[in-house]
Amino acid sequence: MYKKVSMPDISEKGIRMPASPIRKLVPYADAAKERGIKVYHLNIGQPDIATPQTALNAIRRYENNIIEYGHSAGNLSYRKKLAKYYNKLGIDISHEDILITTGGSEALVIALNICLNPGEEVIVPEPFYTNYNSFAMQAGVKIKPITTSIKSGFSMPLMKEFEKLITPSTKAILLCNPNNPTGYLYSRNELEQLRDIVAKHNLFLISDEVYREFCYDGFEYYSCMELKGIEDNVILVDSTSKRYSMCGIRVGALVTRNRQVAESILHFCQARLCAPAIGQIAAEAALDTPEEYFSEIHKEYQERRNCLIEKLNKIEGVFCPMPKGAFYTIARLPVDSAEDFSRWLLEDFEYQGQTVMLAPASGFYHANDRGIDEVRIAYVLQKPDLINAAKCLKHALRKYNN
Amino acid sequence: MYKKVSMPDISEKGIRMPASPIRKLVPYADAAKERGIKVYHLNIGQPDIATPQTALNAIRRYENNIIEYGHSAGNLSYRKKLAKYYNKLGIDISHEDILITTGGSEALVIALNICLNPGEEVIVPEPFYTNYNSFAMQAGVKIKPITTSIKSGFSMPLMKEFEKLITPSTKAILLCNPNNPTGYLYSRNELEQLRDIVAKHNLFLISDEVYREFCYDGFEYYSCMELKGIEDNVILVDSTSKRYSMCGIRVGALVTRNRQVAESILHFCQARLCAPAIGQIAAEAALDTPEEYFSEIHKEYQERRNCLIEKLNKIEGVFCPMPKGAFYTIARLPVDSAEDFSRWLLEDFEYQGQTVMLAPASGFYHANDRGIDEVRIAYVLQKPDLINAAKCLKHALRKYNN
Repeated sequence: MYKKVSMPDISEKGIRMPASPIRKLVPYADAAKERGIKVYHLNIGQPDIATPQTALNAIRRYENNIIEYGHSAGNLSYRKKLAKYYNKLGIDISHEDILITTGGSEALVIALNICLNPGEEVIVPEPFYTNYNSFAMQAGVKIKPITTSIKSGFSMPLMKEFEKLITPSTKAILLCNPNNPTGYLYSRNELEQLRDIVAKHNLFLISDEVYREFCYDGFEYYSCMELKGIEDNVILVDSTSKRYSMCGIRVGALVTRNRQVAESILHFCQARLCAPAIGQIAAEAALDTPEEYFSEIHKEYQERRNCLIEKLNKIEGVFCPMPKGAFYTIARLPVDSAEDFSRWLLEDFEYQGQTVMLAPASGFYHANDRGIDEVRIAYVLQKPDLINAAKCLKHALRKYNN
Repeated sequence: MYKKVSMPDISEKGIRMPASPIRKLVPYADAAKERGIKVYHLNIGQPDIATPQTALNAIRRYENNIIEYGHSAGNLSYRKKLAKYYNKLGIDISHEDILITTGGSEALVIALNICLNPGEEVIVPEPFYTNYNSFAMQAGVKIKPITTSIKSGFSMPLMKEFEKLITPSTKAILLCNPNNPTGYLYSRNELEQLRDIVAKHNLFLISDEVYREFCYDGFEYYSCMELKGIEDNVILVDSTSKRYSMCGIRVGALVTRNRQVAESILHFCQARLCAPAIGQIAAEAALDTPEEYFSEIHKEYQERRNCLIEKLNKIEGVFCPMPKGAFYTIARLPVDSAEDFSRWLLEDFEYQGQTVMLAPASGFYHANDRGIDEVRIAYVLQKPDLINAAKCLKHALRKYNN
């Protein structure tokens, strides 16, 4: 009886759940660092901007002696203050339309679970945030991608392309605006066209707008929550991670005027009791962040973007459209496999003791069979580092292609 | 086109996801409080014990200026220290066998997703922690309950009862030890019998041991991780919530020696990026909590338990077995519907300006059709409050039954 028994089989989901394409090269980066090489992390959207002081202070001044469960919907004081933040943006909702989640990640899993039955379909323009694949797998729902093209800067697909994909199983469209990984910012006109499709086919529109504070060149962010006529169809996914450079606190939100959806979200939230308590305190305090914090960040990111995109496009064979939002861009490289090249950068290359870590873009496409010569680049490093990283990349491509 | 369109249908899961039976009476409690009535919360396991000072200090001394993403598997320093904690308990594992989760809740959802395909079955002794129903629904898996009886103090069902339920679709047994909601502590002998079933039928054994520090009367906790011969079958679910009275930080863990399962857990963890950063810092610091903290809590809970169970059993028609672990008990009341009675307590009753909030036990049974005259009671209040609560209950039952 004490003989070790054979191992039970794990589920298909368990087998298929993909390793993060952003993180799977981490062991190679670690090994490079151990060899004394400086690695520029262009692979991950971890901002180097300080978290607002008001949020850090709130954590350091934590007064309670028991860190208790909070309300499943989120702290009431936080939800009320957050409603005012949305109101200022022109999103007309109350705190009752807001449920606080454990990051945007949990928000997306809950939204997919509530909008779609297992096997039903959600249309997503690709390339898309890689973890959408994982969230869809967790909810047992199918992603139907519409490929957008680097040549058109990843703009909104034509509405007829959406309509071609709509079947009786289609329940939702999932949009990320401003877009991770492309940096594309959808215009009001594009969103109004999308609204017509949503209304015509009675779909949910799940709108992931966690990068809304990052729009450049004077372009304005327009929220799907402002679209008239589809108020009950829209579910906003939000997160405090990027806005306040506090990715680690894991506090996001779901916002919807649809009472049935809100009620169901609450039940999902009750199952996991509450969102992180200390994180919610930081997030509430962060709402007092002065306007200058954002104007400085905005200026900084715009400069970084301008600097990086210019340098990238000067490298022979590299093409990179100018992103209008978020802090990512997709670049096409003159290589057969961006994944092989990215690993080679970490394993076999150095330029003056430095190298670059990239996120191969194929992981941002549904079937991982597109974008094989593309990489996602995050410009969350200081300009001198971005310049050095671009220089490394130039030398690396020259060496790799010889 | 600006006419409001009809609302799209939400998913079956979205409709069926139950409201928490522990929390659904909250609006009635809030209303009672607004009427000036003192409500004794026996319904929820929110300890009134202070969080260890070392954990609170770690939060208040948070030094970083950016709250960054952590490793998806959890902070390495925390995992290493946590491995030592398990080693001391006689659980022979390394930090590589540990993945840090967002509370025990996330741990359970991930474990069910990995062990079972949608539609497959997990056997769970009932009554069980009510959110197991929600977690199973999220993973799309079926709970097959084995009813345990208040008459036998909710002891382990006979092995032949397990075997009766095993079908080709059975993939796992889920056990909570010490048990929430019954307070039952499974003996080594009972667990070894269970091991034989697990080995014979090649099942996963998901062992939720978040209350291990709460065992009374000198009874010893024995972990499923210590069972010989089924090392690859056992997945331990853990949480820091109750151990350190910090339910709000949302930090738990999955522990398994099964490399394939651990790898898959990591992929689930990568999808949601990381567990709460500040919570992990508190959890790591909490491992330095001095032994006296636990011996005092242990003494306190044992006294509370003794006091409460004695008072309850003295009330005419009430029966309540003596729990050996956790800080819950199930009591049978002389009423037709514990749910109606619980609502009545909040809506229509008061004794000297006080009343009691209970958790109707039917929500802890799979089909909500058993335990209709039972309630779950948490003894997380101070003794004088427990005595007052028991007095309230005595008067309430007398009045209710007249």
